[in-house]
Amino acid sequence: MARRRVRLEELVERGEGTTMIISVIGGHECTDEIARLSFDVGRVIAENGHILACGGLTGVMEHVCRGAKSAGGTTIGILPSTDKKDANPYVDIVIPTGIGLARNMIVVLSADVVVAVGGSFGTLSEIAYALQFHKKVFGLETKWHVSDDVEMLDGASMLGERLKRL
Amino acid sequence: MARRRVRLEELVERGEGTTMIISVIGGHECTDEIARLSFDVGRVIAENGHILACGGLTGVMEHVCRGAKSAGGTTIGILPSTDKKDANPYVDIVIPTGIGLARNMIVVLSADVVVAVGGSFGTLSEIAYALQFHKKVFGLETKWHVSDDVEMLDGASMLGERLKRL
Amino acid sequence: MARRRVRLEELVERGEGTTMIISVIGGHECTDEIARLSFDVGRVIAENGHILACGGLTGVMEHVCRGAKSAGGTTIGILPSTDKKDANPYVDIVIPTGIGLARNMIVVLSADVVVAVGGSFGTLSEIAYALQFHKKVFGLETKWHVSDDVEMLDGASMLGERLKRL
Amino acid sequence: MARRRVRLEELVERGEGTTMIISVIGGHECTDEIARLSFDVGRVIAENGHILACGGLTGVMEHVCRGAKSAGGTTIGILPSTDKKDANPYVDIVIPTGIGLARNMIVVLSADVVVAVGGSFGTLSEIAYALQFHKKVFGLETKWHVSDDVEMLDGASMLGERLKRL
Repeated sequence: MARRRVRLEELVERGEGTTMIISVIGGHECTDEIARLSFDVGRVIAENGHILACGGLTGVMEHVCRGAKSAGGTTIGILPSTDKKDANPYVDIVIPTGIGLARNMIVVLSADVVVAVGGSFGTLSEIAYALQFHKKVFGLETKWHVSDDVEMLDGASMLGERLKRL
Repeated sequence: MARRRVRLEELVERGEGTTMIISVIGGHECTDEIARLSFDVGRVIAENGHILACGGLTGVMEHVCRGAKSAGGTTIGILPSTDKKDANPYVDIVIPTGIGLARNMIVVLSADVVVAVGGSFGTLSEIAYALQFHKKVFGLETKWHVSDDVEMLDGASMLGERLKRL
Repeated sequence: MARRRVRLEELVERGEGTTMIISVIGGHECTDEIARLSFDVGRVIAENGHILACGGLTGVMEHVCRGAKSAGGTTIGILPSTDKKDANPYVDIVIPTGIGLARNMIVVLSADVVVAVGGSFGTLSEIAYALQFHKKVFGLETKWHVSDDVEMLDGASMLGERLKRL
Repeated sequence: MARRRVRLEELVERGEGTTMIISVIGGHECTDEIARLSFDVGRVIAENGHILACGGLTGVMEHVCRGAKSAGGTTIGILPSTDKKDANPYVDIVIPTGIGLARNMIVVLSADVVVAVGGSFGTLSEIAYALQFHKKVFGLETKWHVSDDVEMLDGASMLGERLKRL
């Protein structure tokens, strides 16, 4: 039977505040610059004691998971497909939805806070759902500043500051 | 047993061209101006021999269905809920998906052509899905001109002209 | 642009009673005997003036659509995939859901009456949903007599009799 | 902002073997006997070092989560609704899918092993999906022995024995 090892030894809370689920959304392909930013975003989320959720695949999704794991964080991957093996190797808990890109809505609903990094039309559908469900949305290096309710941030450390003040 | 009468007597093709499914997307609440525009859009779609699909509820969805029925057209309503009775009275064929706002993706996938009339964040999620799935998208009186691939039109008769030339 | 021709000339009501949507569920592969039964079920549904819905693919789904079209009926295919071209050639109105086998729930919710013909585990999930949503369920040559609420019928003409008395 | 506290301090792996996600399915209402059995099933899953997933609501879902937490386990609740607050208080990680009962498929897809405890038609739909996706299925005190592939067990400790031998 195909199984997936979940590295629970790292799932120890280290902060003092409230643990949130932060969903990071972005493209399955990205530039080197966006990859580095994604890694830093994942690291900052984990360093602040939060759980990372994302779509579980490649690109921004993989780099942000890698960043979170580098800081001992926990990661959730909400896949479009039915197969756990489609998750990138930095996902701890795999949720294979089997509902294709309709899973974009679940990535957003699972979040207390949504962070968009770069991204194309898939990311735009997630931002739209996030705004419709009244989630707090931050944007980094994304062109989808479609509403004043998308708060644009300049870098991962600024995200860290904002997370502390939520 | 709750049943819904489908007025099939009106489902006779009157044009000569290819019948398409045109999905109209827009808010469940709208101004009087958008209501009139929606009605005209529905009428134009039916007059051109096409089938109208939409989210099946109130606002733009109801006015566009009313317009299509006024011209003897056929209407499909793809509901978020599980209950056929939630459809507006101008829907012929009710598809109650039971998957909430994830049905936005199905409204778009059912279409050969997508037409946005006004609309808020729900409409934006549908435009995003439409662009991701490479559907032709027209926009009327909508602020969501998020890509050059959304072709903005000035009124329902201009939509009629464009439909003839697809 | 890929389009699908909907043969609306055949969508004229011929009966006097109420038009219902009847969803037929069954496997994508079937024996010759089940194929013949499926064809007859589709024919009977159309002859009684009802609209046929199904999962839109091969096997029971294709044979039942073929039967309905042979009697001038209307057919709806609710696909798991995102692509209209995956529908069998006897589907008039294609709803590509893109949500995989979660579309089984929508096949059931779209129905006023559900008819199971043969079928394996996918059909069982649909029967389960149908019973949960309090739909009337008929079974023909199916092993899934999982509840007294599944009314077993002996052949397509018996289904025709029962539909007249609903 | 509504947040949910995740008690990560308890998420430390204690076993030596492979951690699996075990999805327990059952009704949102249950008898006292099924409640006790559900509690024991949850406890056994946690004692064996596995993660529990379920539908996140009341009845079997709540009792099994309570059992898992009593043994320091980790719990995932995959909700039909859009609201994290609908989860029972013993759920650590809440996935609000917003897709209604179509989430039954996701409960099953998230699992390495599925365990049915009692249950009605909703549980039957989940067993059907589990068999269709070739998941290992155990049944306890359930009437849904619909296939030889549902392995019936006599009590929670027998489940514990079987989990060790997978």
